[in-house]
Amino acid sequence: MSQRQAADIAPPTVPKAKKVEGPLGVIAGRGALPLVVAEAATASDIPVHIVGIRGEASADIERFPHTWIKWGEIGKLFAALKENGCTDLVIIGGVNRPDFDNIRVDLGAIKSLPFLLSLAKGGDDYVLSRIVWFFEEKGYRVHGAGHVLPELLAPEGTLSTKSPSADDHADIAEAFNVVRVLGRFDIGQAAVVARGHVLAVEAAEGTDALLDRCASVRKQGRTHGTKKGVLVKAPKAGQEERIDMPTIGPETMHKAAAAGLAGVAVAAGHVLMAERAETIRAANEHKLFLVGQPWSNTETDS
Amino acid sequence: MSQRQAADIAPPTVPKAKKVEGPLGVIAGRGALPLVVAEAATASDIPVHIVGIRGEASADIERFPHTWIKWGEIGKLFAALKENGCTDLVIIGGVNRPDFDNIRVDLGAIKSLPFLLSLAKGGDDYVLSRIVWFFEEKGYRVHGAGHVLPELLAPEGTLSTKSPSADDHADIAEAFNVVRVLGRFDIGQAAVVARGHVLAVEAAEGTDALLDRCASVRKQGRTHGTKKGVLVKAPKAGQEERIDMPTIGPETMHKAAAAGLAGVAVAAGHVLMAERAETIRAANEHKLFLVGQPWSNTETDS
Repeated sequence: MSQRQAADIAPPTVPKAKKVEGPLGVIAGRGALPLVVAEAATASDIPVHIVGIRGEASADIERFPHTWIKWGEIGKLFAALKENGCTDLVIIGGVNRPDFDNIRVDLGAIKSLPFLLSLAKGGDDYVLSRIVWFFEEKGYRVHGAGHVLPELLAPEGTLSTKSPSADDHADIAEAFNVVRVLGRFDIGQAAVVARGHVLAVEAAEGTDALLDRCASVRKQGRTHGTKKGVLVKAPKAGQEERIDMPTIGPETMHKAAAAGLAGVAVAAGHVLMAERAETIRAANEHKLFLVGQPWSNTETDS
Repeated sequence: MSQRQAADIAPPTVPKAKKVEGPLGVIAGRGALPLVVAEAATASDIPVHIVGIRGEASADIERFPHTWIKWGEIGKLFAALKENGCTDLVIIGGVNRPDFDNIRVDLGAIKSLPFLLSLAKGGDDYVLSRIVWFFEEKGYRVHGAGHVLPELLAPEGTLSTKSPSADDHADIAEAFNVVRVLGRFDIGQAAVVARGHVLAVEAAEGTDALLDRCASVRKQGRTHGTKKGVLVKAPKAGQEERIDMPTIGPETMHKAAAAGLAGVAVAAGHVLMAERAETIRAANEHKLFLVGQPWSNTETDS
């Protein structure tokens, strides 16, 4: 297969840390990531102010300077940013797309209504780009968490004790190609390939669901007896990495192990691995390999 | 999107019925399809002999002339075919790939051992082609069920009361393109696209799991508020259609409705729709559209 070779390309492009002026505004959705970002920033002597979206962000954001807003309270959001001198922003943590029927609309939101309504249409990248533009138009700088804090990105190289075999490398290359080809449909942050078989491809369901599916496909005996395979995560071509970067963590390793995979490979410098030590520990605990692979966003196969 | 146009191509290639000499041998795996084939053949005055794989085929095959075999009883399989004068074969119904540790090996299987072992490797199409060659080498003709009984194939045109809207047509074209592009990775018999968003792509998990996933993605509010979308099924490029054809039935319609889709489109002449009346009835019951679209196996997008 000619696709097998194509993933071994291009130099790594791990970005250098960007300079933040004044406190970093963290607009926080679900999960641990907003907290990890706040902790890493604090450790780097960057003060933070977290704006947590109610119903999405963890209550633990209250450990840091914070403001709570509800969906639609855009006036309150900008007031909080202004009051705390935040012009550099990180927008992080999953959010459910707002239910426009149940949204609380404040004055800021009314002015932004045409923008908010435009979010109801369009592909993911389109929507996310619009969000970035929305803030930039108002004079804010929007950064990827990993661009401000590069220590949160997956580095290049083998991070685990275990290394991929030659067969694993072939699966890695194939899975990177699947992800790359699917990028043109605005999907394809993850794929699982086992000994040349594509077991699963991610679209809207998320990587956890992808790995759960692999585990159940394997139980049904439909993986052709193979006990190996690799999860690959990489950004989509043209992905708005400032606001939507593929992410792995310890849970990814637990689920990859439960799916009977041999390991995980990610696009170095383009995948958030905020809990690096815990993630590597989980990989080693399950005897999985974990590698950061040089990555170029260009689709190279034909 | 240039992909949007590409699916509207190529003339339909619904095959004409092939002539069968003597009784049709039906090698039966799981599900209702072997029975539907046996019924359709009988209705067309083609006598049948079903060879059912124990643990896979339904006990209902006993309504027809039949022989039961276990996995690995290849000698017994060929004896049954010879005894009943079957030189034309249809191999149909899902099977789990045999567990080589638990297989009962008869004399026929020992002679075939190198072949059987070769099945443990390789992609689906490779394995399936080997199975076809295996029988052809021994002088049998292997047919797709739909090639012997074209009434089992999805025809071209709108089969349901409801017709696709312009937006639905755009989704159909996009989903056909996803399936077409994924064919090069030996996956991609199905994809779900809703208003330009690719919600789910099928790899090893099967279409039922794909639709269940769409239903749960939609419940989680990750489908961007859209209430529409289409399931497309088509063969992979180079798919061994004689032995592995994409299939839809009433259950597909029930699951598509549960996933909140607007309808289903299939590659006319290349998708088995053995229970045609029931499938159309289920589509109408759920107010889904169901269309057979002209289909060419060639990848046309760039």
